[in-house]
Amino acid sequence: MTQIRFALAQIDTCVGDLDGNADKIMQYVHLAARNRAQVVVFPEMTLTGYPIEDLALRGTFRRAAWDKANWLATELAADGLGDLYVAVGTVGTDHASDKPRNRMVVLHDGVVWAGYDKHFLPNYGVFDEFRIFTAGDRSVVLDVDGARIGVAICEDIWQDGGPVAELAERGIDVLMTMNGSPYEEGKTHVRHELAVRRAAEVHAPVIYVNQVGGQDDLVFDGGSFVVDADGTMLVRSPMFMEHLGFFDLDTMAAKQTPGEIAPELDPDEEVYTACVLGLKDYMAKNHFHGVCLGLSGGIDSALVAAMAADAVGGEHVQGISMPSMYSSDGSKDDAADLVANIGAKYDIQPIEPLFNAYQQQLHLDGVAAENLQARIRGVIVMAYSNSKGLLAVATGNKSELACGYSTIYGDAVGGYAPIKDLLKTRVWELSRWRNRAAAAGMGIGGLHIVGNEQGDSGTPLPGGVMIPVNSIEKAPSAELRPGQKDSDSLPEYALLDQVLAAYIEHAHGRADLLADGFDEQTVDTVMRLVDRAEWKRRQYPLGPKVTALAFGRDRRLPVTNAFRE
Amino acid sequence: MTQIRFALAQIDTCVGDLDGNADKIMQYVHLAARNRAQVVVFPEMTLTGYPIEDLALRGTFRRAAWDKANWLATELAADGLGDLYVAVGTVGTDHASDKPRNRMVVLHDGVVWAGYDKHFLPNYGVFDEFRIFTAGDRSVVLDVDGARIGVAICEDIWQDGGPVAELAERGIDVLMTMNGSPYEEGKTHVRHELAVRRAAEVHAPVIYVNQVGGQDDLVFDGGSFVVDADGTMLVRSPMFMEHLGFFDLDTMAAKQTPGEIAPELDPDEEVYTACVLGLKDYMAKNHFHGVCLGLSGGIDSALVAAMAADAVGGEHVQGISMPSMYSSDGSKDDAADLVANIGAKYDIQPIEPLFNAYQQQLHLDGVAAENLQARIRGVIVMAYSNSKGLLAVATGNKSELACGYSTIYGDAVGGYAPIKDLLKTRVWELSRWRNRAAAAGMGIGGLHIVGNEQGDSGTPLPGGVMIPVNSIEKAPSAELRPGQKDSDSLPEYALLDQVLAAYIEHAHGRADLLADGFDEQTVDTVMRLVDRAEWKRRQYPLGPKVTALAFGRDRRLPVTNAFRE
Repeated sequence: MTQIRFALAQIDTCVGDLDGNADKIMQYVHLAARNRAQVVVFPEMTLTGYPIEDLALRGTFRRAAWDKANWLATELAADGLGDLYVAVGTVGTDHASDKPRNRMVVLHDGVVWAGYDKHFLPNYGVFDEFRIFTAGDRSVVLDVDGARIGVAICEDIWQDGGPVAELAERGIDVLMTMNGSPYEEGKTHVRHELAVRRAAEVHAPVIYVNQVGGQDDLVFDGGSFVVDADGTMLVRSPMFMEHLGFFDLDTMAAKQTPGEIAPELDPDEEVYTACVLGLKDYMAKNHFHGVCLGLSGGIDSALVAAMAADAVGGEHVQGISMPSMYSSDGSKDDAADLVANIGAKYDIQPIEPLFNAYQQQLHLDGVAAENLQARIRGVIVMAYSNSKGLLAVATGNKSELACGYSTIYGDAVGGYAPIKDLLKTRVWELSRWRNRAAAAGMGIGGLHIVGNEQGDSGTPLPGGVMIPVNSIEKAPSAELRPGQKDSDSLPEYALLDQVLAAYIEHAHGRADLLADGFDEQTVDTVMRLVDRAEWKRRQYPLGPKVTALAFGRDRRLPVTNAFRE
Repeated sequence: MTQIRFALAQIDTCVGDLDGNADKIMQYVHLAARNRAQVVVFPEMTLTGYPIEDLALRGTFRRAAWDKANWLATELAADGLGDLYVAVGTVGTDHASDKPRNRMVVLHDGVVWAGYDKHFLPNYGVFDEFRIFTAGDRSVVLDVDGARIGVAICEDIWQDGGPVAELAERGIDVLMTMNGSPYEEGKTHVRHELAVRRAAEVHAPVIYVNQVGGQDDLVFDGGSFVVDADGTMLVRSPMFMEHLGFFDLDTMAAKQTPGEIAPELDPDEEVYTACVLGLKDYMAKNHFHGVCLGLSGGIDSALVAAMAADAVGGEHVQGISMPSMYSSDGSKDDAADLVANIGAKYDIQPIEPLFNAYQQQLHLDGVAAENLQARIRGVIVMAYSNSKGLLAVATGNKSELACGYSTIYGDAVGGYAPIKDLLKTRVWELSRWRNRAAAAGMGIGGLHIVGNEQGDSGTPLPGGVMIPVNSIEKAPSAELRPGQKDSDSLPEYALLDQVLAAYIEHAHGRADLLADGFDEQTVDTVMRLVDRAEWKRRQYPLGPKVTALAFGRDRRLPVTNAFRE
């Protein structure tokens, strides 16, 4: 009988930060060793951070990553941890082609074993791996005290055939996978079902270790787990937190012994927490200590302010009310109520004098005059950002982003937009959820999230409410002209969001949308708006490529990138 | 003996505009027939436009393209042109996987022959084809009156092996290729050398038909050509214009008879023309009739205004001088001189009253006060854009874009940035070239460009000069504080541009740059600036992905897209 203890090291790394990532790996290996683990599994591309995009193409980066892996192996051995098998993800180089590889290495006995190269390189949705890496072409089985450990990296288990099929044929005692699987609503169940299928295929338990944390516009949710050969859930780590889980493999047992299983989150809590973690990590990894944003009294800015308070504390949130001649008293009151609830800093900067100064020169009307108001506000938000070193956060939601119902260089300014992937109806749902959580005692920062591992209930909210009920219940308005309502320009959100979901998420064309039962006028309105708004969604001006390497499509680098060599 | 006349149809298509593209194909086939051609070759993805990016994934689009190809075949036959073989690029569907294919079809005798699917799908630089298409897996030889015509699509001839190697083995009389090869300085010679190599490989002439025109941030330069089996240049079409060239193949001749060979362009003229065509086509395809831009008196805005005048005529250029308390008289004079030279509209909008109005509320200093000036100008430029329906063009060059030496939402506003891929030293060179061309009689719109096919010398320039000499010769300054010079913040451009070329174009890391002989302080300054500016190059705020399909990395659609189904 062979018994092996695996540690599932669900950590939050930063792209390019080889020193910081290596230090964190050291810390988790020590913790795993104190808990008598023999094998420690980290997420995909642990050492380099993930996704590194075209940074992989830089030779100096690959050399530095290789040196750092060797340093880690040496240090671990020097600390008396050479006996452990530590599976770390990094970037390798295929020496025949000098192209990068997405690689798992095993640190053991002071040495870096050049282990396994990812076989299936996803190149759809957010993934560009075929662009960057050369594919591996062989399966690998590690022998640890007689136990046969098959390995795979992320996409390798999402595709039929390839290394998993080979491992099934070769026979293994456990399939150990490292993953960088971005968060997506409802994806937890898809991953579990997939792992159950692969466990049946290889007749062995599957260990699934996922990274956690935000990287640019991706959030990784963790939620690492182990399923038995028969599909039984044996271990599940919490989502959105760093965590070290354990799994004891008995190679002779027909069924494995279950370990710790974290409870599932409420679907609204899950999405809300993903947005907060994305913002919190974007700030931490880009060295921002506070945010500023315009507070209109509307629901979008209120929800974003609440998320910011949950991410970094209300005292690090600078709210700016920028009322115009068209702002209602109710809106100003709602903004003030929100600020009081979350304990934010609050300034009032009326825009009417500025608007009048421009109009003396420009004499605008119609949409140009509406955009002018939004752009004056954008200038003010950026002035706070520049003068106080704060991250400007944009408050647009996915419905308005999709339809272009916003002003570029106006309300769209900012370095991070926490709710840009939430349809308006979801914005309302999450706001209601956050108030329910507040009523149940969850204060500011009470979320289950990386950096808040103690899991306390946060700073209490006065009155047990976070988002003013009026902001949730009133009819949405941009307040750029008297009596304006969103429904003057857009279908009602309940309908609009359904059409957007079908058109964007399910790629239904016009004929499909009509067959879905939407009326022709709505379909044509929404399609026209969405198709025309593409240019707004890429604010930086397009320009002709005339050299071998231009910015834009040619050169795809992460914004969050700590590498400086 | 078999003689076949090929027509090389170098045309400018628009992504998504199936009707417009089909009409243009009809028009060129008629012209080819009048010139007794038997085979007409169009560029890659002629019918759909190229690159169509994720539009290929939309089923309604693929069905519409298929219907349009059938319509074309039927119409051609009805017009008595069914005898011709018309090779057109389009999107196909692999019915096994329901995934798109990059396809050449041949229209003949009223029928669409489902021809050849592109084998090598480039996924580097600006290309994302592996992401979108399924690869073809067989070579195709067309028999036309006993002549064996091998076919290939673009990347198929850039990679060794694959379909060209198969064709060499099968034996062909000519290799006919359709291409969508974006412009790049110096690429003409690379393409020729490649074709010469493939001609030797297949022992036959190679026909290379390339598309021409701008599509978002790509410019296609045309420059179609034919090389003989021994590498002799037989036919060369002009660059940057639509053109129908001819090649007479004699399958029994050891050497083919040369045809028309267009002269090569001066390297400065080539790059300048690429920038003008990019702007002109972006405007035409997105239905803009004029541009507006800030004119500072500096060289960047002067060059961009000159390009805009060459693209659409000086009378469609709205210049806006926005002097501040720090603007020199010289700068204002230089802007006025430029406007007089190109015949642009010109307004003066002083920003000092607006700056003072903001400062009464905000009390900014340092960089925040500098950015405020740039952002006030951005608001004014966008007010002109919105109220007059003009395309705002940004005037930033690649050196400042690389280093982040600009203000987001300030001087960086605009929908198109004609010189964003030109280093500052190149900006000066092109300005000098344009003045030399003016002195030699080339007026506004005198470029060799799509839409100006008559090739006249354009509207004469008063005094035979376009760009004020003072704008070229004075030291660059942002004029955001008294006495400011670019060289206060950046290395001298002659040095900076060399470091940028090495760091960006050649991906040299720190150690490489030192080995290149650059001093350590310069290297560290430039690397720090470039690495930190990545976020500025993507102005739209990042935000967390939480649904299956988010805007941004997930969904990559062209901005210029005429498809509306």
